[in-house]
Amino acid sequence: MSPATEPPRVVIEEITPAVDGGRYPVKLTVGGTLDVGANVFRDGHDLVAARVIFLAPGEPQWRSAPLTYKFEPDRWYGSFRVEQAGRWHYGVEAWPDHFGTWRSELQKRVQAGQDVRSELLVGALLLERYATLLRGDVARHVRELAKTMADDDAPLDARLRAALDENLLAEVYGPLEPADLTRSPLFELVVDRPEASFAAWYELFPRSQSTKPGVHGTFLDTARRLPEIAALGFDVIYLPPIHPIGETHRKGRNNAPVAEPGDVGSPWGIGSSAGGHTAVHPDLGTLADFEHLVASARDLGLEIALDYALQCSPDHPWVKEHPEWFFVRPDGSIRYAENPPKKYEDIYPLNFWCKDREAMWNACRDVLLFWAERGVRTFRVDNPHTKPFAFWEWVLREVHTRYPDVVFLSESFTRPNRMKALAKLGFNQSYTYFTWKNTAWELRDYFRELTTPPMTLYYRPNCFTNTPDILHEYLQHGGRPAFRVRLVLAATLAPLYGIYSGFELCEGTPVRPGSEEYIDSEKYQLVTRDYNGPGNIKQDVARLNRIRRENAALQTLPNLEFVQSDFDGILAYRRYAPGNELLVVVNLDPHLMHETVIDVPLDRMGISEQEPYEVFDLLSGGRYTWRGRRNYVKLDPSERVAHVFRITRRG
Amino acid sequence: MSPATEPPRVVIEEITPAVDGGRYPVKLTVGGTLDVGANVFRDGHDLVAARVIFLAPGEPQWRSAPLTYKFEPDRWYGSFRVEQAGRWHYGVEAWPDHFGTWRSELQKRVQAGQDVRSELLVGALLLERYATLLRGDVARHVRELAKTMADDDAPLDARLRAALDENLLAEVYGPLEPADLTRSPLFELVVDRPEASFAAWYELFPRSQSTKPGVHGTFLDTARRLPEIAALGFDVIYLPPIHPIGETHRKGRNNAPVAEPGDVGSPWGIGSSAGGHTAVHPDLGTLADFEHLVASARDLGLEIALDYALQCSPDHPWVKEHPEWFFVRPDGSIRYAENPPKKYEDIYPLNFWCKDREAMWNACRDVLLFWAERGVRTFRVDNPHTKPFAFWEWVLREVHTRYPDVVFLSESFTRPNRMKALAKLGFNQSYTYFTWKNTAWELRDYFRELTTPPMTLYYRPNCFTNTPDILHEYLQHGGRPAFRVRLVLAATLAPLYGIYSGFELCEGTPVRPGSEEYIDSEKYQLVTRDYNGPGNIKQDVARLNRIRRENAALQTLPNLEFVQSDFDGILAYRRYAPGNELLVVVNLDPHLMHETVIDVPLDRMGISEQEPYEVFDLLSGGRYTWRGRRNYVKLDPSERVAHVFRITRRG
Repeated sequence: MSPATEPPRVVIEEITPAVDGGRYPVKLTVGGTLDVGANVFRDGHDLVAARVIFLAPGEPQWRSAPLTYKFEPDRWYGSFRVEQAGRWHYGVEAWPDHFGTWRSELQKRVQAGQDVRSELLVGALLLERYATLLRGDVARHVRELAKTMADDDAPLDARLRAALDENLLAEVYGPLEPADLTRSPLFELVVDRPEASFAAWYELFPRSQSTKPGVHGTFLDTARRLPEIAALGFDVIYLPPIHPIGETHRKGRNNAPVAEPGDVGSPWGIGSSAGGHTAVHPDLGTLADFEHLVASARDLGLEIALDYALQCSPDHPWVKEHPEWFFVRPDGSIRYAENPPKKYEDIYPLNFWCKDREAMWNACRDVLLFWAERGVRTFRVDNPHTKPFAFWEWVLREVHTRYPDVVFLSESFTRPNRMKALAKLGFNQSYTYFTWKNTAWELRDYFRELTTPPMTLYYRPNCFTNTPDILHEYLQHGGRPAFRVRLVLAATLAPLYGIYSGFELCEGTPVRPGSEEYIDSEKYQLVTRDYNGPGNIKQDVARLNRIRRENAALQTLPNLEFVQSDFDGILAYRRYAPGNELLVVVNLDPHLMHETVIDVPLDRMGISEQEPYEVFDLLSGGRYTWRGRRNYVKLDPSERVAHVFRITRRG
Repeated sequence: MSPATEPPRVVIEEITPAVDGGRYPVKLTVGGTLDVGANVFRDGHDLVAARVIFLAPGEPQWRSAPLTYKFEPDRWYGSFRVEQAGRWHYGVEAWPDHFGTWRSELQKRVQAGQDVRSELLVGALLLERYATLLRGDVARHVRELAKTMADDDAPLDARLRAALDENLLAEVYGPLEPADLTRSPLFELVVDRPEASFAAWYELFPRSQSTKPGVHGTFLDTARRLPEIAALGFDVIYLPPIHPIGETHRKGRNNAPVAEPGDVGSPWGIGSSAGGHTAVHPDLGTLADFEHLVASARDLGLEIALDYALQCSPDHPWVKEHPEWFFVRPDGSIRYAENPPKKYEDIYPLNFWCKDREAMWNACRDVLLFWAERGVRTFRVDNPHTKPFAFWEWVLREVHTRYPDVVFLSESFTRPNRMKALAKLGFNQSYTYFTWKNTAWELRDYFRELTTPPMTLYYRPNCFTNTPDILHEYLQHGGRPAFRVRLVLAATLAPLYGIYSGFELCEGTPVRPGSEEYIDSEKYQLVTRDYNGPGNIKQDVARLNRIRRENAALQTLPNLEFVQSDFDGILAYRRYAPGNELLVVVNLDPHLMHETVIDVPLDRMGISEQEPYEVFDLLSGGRYTWRGRRNYVKLDPSERVAHVFRITRRG
């Protein structure tokens, strides 16, 4: 810095929230409030003033809200509400409070009995300078006050009254832009629609939606199932890829390396002579059928999410049209996907750094725009960590600029830093390690990280109970109670959760012992299900989804507190929102009845130790009156696996 | 980012060390090592490589050191040594390790028994491309290997041996600049000379250095005292302002608002008809005398530090020459310093934001350059928090650019954020709250913060036991043992410490009860002392300074560990360096004998529980053999207040 440029008058530092010092945006949803904090100070004894500034997407004008200084030294806080989706910007401005300083010093001098006549002249000069920048009545009033203050013939009392006029600060500071402003660096804030942070997902394969065994299901079959899924209380229906499936090296049933005649192949082997990422599989119907499905869902308050899987079967049109977009071997052949020594011969990975990169990236973006134009607003992205991080940062921004309401869910099961990096750079939601967290300590550790900063600033966990790739052994061995346990946990620990169809029927047989793959997996064949079959837990699903909609405590992430339970196999936690106190108690053992005493954190609920309070089980409808912190609970998994208590003060 | 620009191939994040995300430089001293860490990763399964890059001041060429990846997922570490003072830069570079990935995959394929002939062609092509960028023997060798690898007629064994040639990686990667490089943002690193982080300071008023009562001391008198101060083991002698002192509103003895005839005034009331900040007080001698003092000190291994106090007496030449540099009242008079209702009429503050700001800031800088040209390399800066932070960031950089060996000590006793901000923006050392930390828990709390990151990255605490403004009540009431306690604490808790003269004579009388001001303070009058008077603790001072020089453990900041002591009034702590284990035990009660059992952290000292070890008291010369963790200690303040044990394994 050379003194020829204007140096900052005020120090502004440690602005919160910020992800990686501002490198990545903070996330919020529409209607939310951003609470901003900053260290603001300057030299000497003079007062400073500060405000948070913010710019809504598409707006020409910055707005501002005051920052105020309360308890911690030099730490200022303020907030603003975000009313629309898109990319916002915010920062902090601070400036020396010249007139405020003068007034506060005047008061100290008066209290000390000092001669303040010279000071009154100083203040009058300041006000006169302000008055030249003000208009109308305000300017007139300020000039009058200044005149009185400077009037040597007026009684001192009157001059002081003018100086300390209680409306004066507001009059001067309301309309006036502060002088000597210091502005912090600016930060980005991505505001999503509310469904980005609170929704229940249901995954289904459209081709399995025919009611006749062996018959390929269609979009129309899928549309017929919508009322049932809506009645269960889901918000989003996620479809694995709906595109034509390649023939070359198609996988057979149970992932057999060679398909038998009639095998339908994996939907992730995208592309055939019938088209690529912008085509629909002919056996599912037409593009018009798909659009009908999207519209029917919308009518029921449901949303269709598509899978975005950037890979091509050898029969994908891009392979012929743009072989340079793939990895070419010295013999001219195109390289299939590998993670040596594993081979995935039905799939060609794209070469994101090929010479024709720009066209290839644009083509990938255009796939998303194609579906967005057809009403799709949610994409579950397949394995994003196997494509460049820079690509995602670019393509998500490209889509969000045009469609700020698009939600991208990152299906990345990889090392924590990479999962987090994808969330930071733009994914609106992310899969989690939830399926592998089954003991009390695992759940506590993991959810403590998920529900506290910095992760809450950018990472929205979507806790699936299962996926076509993940059938955890807890479900394989735990029977129906295990499914009920995991359902309650997913639905009450995270505002975003999902199940993959079959879960509600407690399907739990693996392809072989030790595997997390399903037997006769829908990934490679058609499956026909009786969705009302015996032992289904649809009633649990419907009830939990209703409880989630009726209880604000289950709709935001950072309001989770684990509660002491004397027996560690029973997990207890508090979820809270203003006026909504929940206490969830889950027996994690799907086999045996257990009992415990839990320690209700009454102090934080505003209930005194002596006061009786009502405990209403939203799952069973049971109603109890408790008193004091320590309360006995017993859960027999053959009957019930959990309580979801709503706690209210009596009377 | 548009796809037209080259997007990064690798993600580099969370680089450490960094102060406020890189906004401010990290500090180190010459000969030190910067340990750099970074999260480095990319998409997919391919390997990455990374290095730390660094640029020494004035060098044209960046150098680099490897980063390696060990235990934590994606976390890479490396380091480099800094050999010269000045402003360095560093950052991290990472790139896809194409050939390394190819080799590692080849090995996996071979192990799985796959046909690797096509892979050998891929590798050969890679090598041939590298060979075109290499020279001489290396290029020849790489070409030969590539040829063998691609040779369909050669036995597979030979082709694989060529591919896995153990020198190949070094041959290719040594001379070749990596392709597809991603570079992180760059960070600043300020490297100071060693004395910036390890030194003992002694503060004296030159005008009090005459041996004749009532006679104004001189630079020559001061020079005569140098051998004694050098013998005590000090490194830096800090002089309060040596400039002419104003007459107008001069303060009298004991801060009397009006001076009596003959009163010498406060040295901080800078400037008279005899000159301002670049003049010396006529009664102290001439500029030549001062230069003689600087040279004499240098001959004894001592350094003279000047006070940089940016304020002017009403008689300062700047007031006449540049009245616009001050605050002018409406009546045309210049405003004296105030913190209402307190008034400091002998001082005019500078208006750092006046219209002539540029000239004024330059003049302030030129004062520093004036003294630097005369050999002064250390400045104690008076109340920097009452001048703009932006001014300091600018002026310190201006001086450091010309004189990278200048050390600035910030005398800022204000709120923590402001003290820290001054250190971040460029001060090389900072005063601390040490004088006010007297109980065990206060000392533990405060020194834990001072000796751990982030503070260690930028804040070098200089722990003064006392100053002309601070005589803590612990010293007022504790007598000689209290002075000995505080001396041991300062000298062994911090590599930088200082005493203000009189401390070694246990001067402890305040101007009035409840005040931290000295009676008959040297700030306002001449003081004559018998430095060999009864009860002096010069022997303690000399011994502690020698112990500091002989023990590396006392020369760096972050190697402090507090040790469990059963009685909390006895503070125990470990200071350590490679091959140098110290255990300091201090009885904080200056009045009573106490005993305790301390828990020696043998595990971290590499001593087993059964093994006897030698405990040598560097203060008393006592030598003991201990065994096991728990050891009894007794300290009677009338004899000794502390042990400074050096611990060694026996045999």
